[in-house]
Amino acid sequence: MSTTPRPDDAGGQPDLIVAARDGVTTLQLNRPQRRHALSLSLLEQLDEALAAIAEDKTVRAVVIASEGKVFCSGHDLGEMTGRSEEDYQTLFATCARMMQRVRQLPQPVIARVQGFATAAGCQLVAACDLAVAAEEAQFATPGVRIGLFCTTPMVPLVRNIAPKMAMEMLLTGQPISAQQALSAGLVNRVVPANQLDAAVSELTDAIVASSPLTVSIGKRAFYDQLSLDEETAYQRAVAVMTDNALRHDAQEGMTAFLEKRSPDWTGS
Amino acid sequence: MSTTPRPDDAGGQPDLIVAARDGVTTLQLNRPQRRHALSLSLLEQLDEALAAIAEDKTVRAVVIASEGKVFCSGHDLGEMTGRSEEDYQTLFATCARMMQRVRQLPQPVIARVQGFATAAGCQLVAACDLAVAAEEAQFATPGVRIGLFCTTPMVPLVRNIAPKMAMEMLLTGQPISAQQALSAGLVNRVVPANQLDAAVSELTDAIVASSPLTVSIGKRAFYDQLSLDEETAYQRAVAVMTDNALRHDAQEGMTAFLEKRSPDWTGS
Amino acid sequence: MSTTPRPDDAGGQPDLIVAARDGVTTLQLNRPQRRHALSLSLLEQLDEALAAIAEDKTVRAVVIASEGKVFCSGHDLGEMTGRSEEDYQTLFATCARMMQRVRQLPQPVIARVQGFATAAGCQLVAACDLAVAAEEAQFATPGVRIGLFCTTPMVPLVRNIAPKMAMEMLLTGQPISAQQALSAGLVNRVVPANQLDAAVSELTDAIVASSPLTVSIGKRAFYDQLSLDEETAYQRAVAVMTDNALRHDAQEGMTAFLEKRSPDWTGS
Repeated sequence: MSTTPRPDDAGGQPDLIVAARDGVTTLQLNRPQRRHALSLSLLEQLDEALAAIAEDKTVRAVVIASEGKVFCSGHDLGEMTGRSEEDYQTLFATCARMMQRVRQLPQPVIARVQGFATAAGCQLVAACDLAVAAEEAQFATPGVRIGLFCTTPMVPLVRNIAPKMAMEMLLTGQPISAQQALSAGLVNRVVPANQLDAAVSELTDAIVASSPLTVSIGKRAFYDQLSLDEETAYQRAVAVMTDNALRHDAQEGMTAFLEKRSPDWTGS
Repeated sequence: MSTTPRPDDAGGQPDLIVAARDGVTTLQLNRPQRRHALSLSLLEQLDEALAAIAEDKTVRAVVIASEGKVFCSGHDLGEMTGRSEEDYQTLFATCARMMQRVRQLPQPVIARVQGFATAAGCQLVAACDLAVAAEEAQFATPGVRIGLFCTTPMVPLVRNIAPKMAMEMLLTGQPISAQQALSAGLVNRVVPANQLDAAVSELTDAIVASSPLTVSIGKRAFYDQLSLDEETAYQRAVAVMTDNALRHDAQEGMTAFLEKRSPDWTGS
Repeated sequence: MSTTPRPDDAGGQPDLIVAARDGVTTLQLNRPQRRHALSLSLLEQLDEALAAIAEDKTVRAVVIASEGKVFCSGHDLGEMTGRSEEDYQTLFATCARMMQRVRQLPQPVIARVQGFATAAGCQLVAACDLAVAAEEAQFATPGVRIGLFCTTPMVPLVRNIAPKMAMEMLLTGQPISAQQALSAGLVNRVVPANQLDAAVSELTDAIVASSPLTVSIGKRAFYDQLSLDEETAYQRAVAVMTDNALRHDAQEGMTAFLEKRSPDWTGS
């Protein structure tokens, strides 16, 4: 297990702890004194870390994690007041770019949500491919209560859950429970806190067992066709699946299945 | 509390009762003898009332309500047979325009559903931003059974609930219960009938406590980006949120939060 | 009841058993020795059968069924290894065309799912207008485990269920239960296996009782407007509903309702 801490602005504890183990890289938000808020610096570090992971073939899955009662409290209000238009534009655009990079990453990204996920923190959960939550976790988009509607968090939120539920969260700012998030489709599993790692591992184990090429082809195709009309989506899907079928890992996977043996992936 | 009744076609009881109180305007459908059916006249009155509300800064939230066993039975069949193409076109276009005005209104609109909501009545619930239902409420799109498929009701219905469930409602005409509507995402809350007003007030209280500017920015952005691909949606959201952050109410809201005091909204 | 068996490749039992009764045509997958896999030949037979049904006014509803522990295991791996690009392209395009024909068919199509539905078998359930499942049924998109991501199955799957749940199915290949499929929106009903036919009949009875013209107008409009923005969807819906209202069956249906008698559909 390798750990690559990066110094934060103040030069003390790193804002982001990057740990790699058995093909799974964990990005741990580490600003406990700021409720793991996404400062511009932390957003840039996350973006940079994801950009590096995209090029790293040893990484097969990514987990975004945190510790304590709060998973992530969203933007850091301490750096949000009295700024210029350019500052806000940079902050929100950097945030949106990082969230989209999660989607564009070849490897699946799983949110491991142990506590409160609010505003851009809730957005981060929505932006991940999969999410596992502890029973104590809660989810909210409370920006409206401080005059700043959670407009960018809304983008992936309403692409995960039903519109009236999203609208209620956005208009009232009230949190939903982990169980409500599960019913709504915002998370995949809710487990007791002490089973959170096991639940995440169940997902990463399944992902790591598959061909990384196949996983990346599928993940890209998933988001590429999501907002298309069905006919266009099918056209693209047929082309992607034809290409996939011709690759070594598909031929090997199908042959191994027919021969009742384990496949030998090469990632090609 | 001001009440502005309007005379109905026959000059007796008003078809629509408009009541304003504490920033919340209630539009009460009032055609009990016709199961609160949406006659062309009532549709025009609703449209006109919403147009006036859009310009009225004292209104912060809108409730669409009704009394009795039926919330709204949809179009008025009594005026639907043997009409000209132009008549039907006018009726359905007026209906669609009113439903879209609900979405375009700066203020959130909540359906208070105490009874049966069928056809365009079900559409009205789907078109509202939020909905609260009594346990006795039911929802149906039964047009298919009288030869006239609920095609316009389908538009917001299938943007609220899963397609197979919408298709079943549309193809069989069978009603779903309030609980099913809740699970499906068509309503936000289901409560005993005697708690309906309290449940609605909980939502309107939260809305009225927020900056009306922030609420209107957020509501508009919600529908503007709903059918866009995620990348385009993010581009718009970043621009909207940057604009929002520069406004007085956002600066005041964030500052008040950091100073642990109540914000003083100006709506600017 | 007429039965039109077609010989399979080997000239023995037919791959597809077509049975018509009381306005309902059942297409029974019949390759038990191959877990009812969708060979290119079976896909073409399904496509041909659907094309014929589209022109047959005596058919009012279609049921896609199967027998045994497996509903449909997807593509036939036996014909999937070591093929040319053209072969794969033909196979996937034929499959996609058949699935889209289900949507384009004037008559509603119901999946009767008694067992496992995997890969393109799960896609077939997703592509149907309605689906009824036995308690034993399960649903999976396990292609990732054999190196070939279920990219075309994904297209209708993610248009039926929430994206994170679809992503989990696609990335892990793990099955979901009939109850999970019901909660997610992939099927309309889950019943004990011995009540499967009764549950399907409840749906087909409702459909057969309605005007076939009205049903076909509504079904087409449903898919036509599904991926449009709401404003455009409303424009089309108003035009469709105006046209529908002018037809004999709508005038007859509304009049019969007002006169409290049964309507007499002519399908015009």
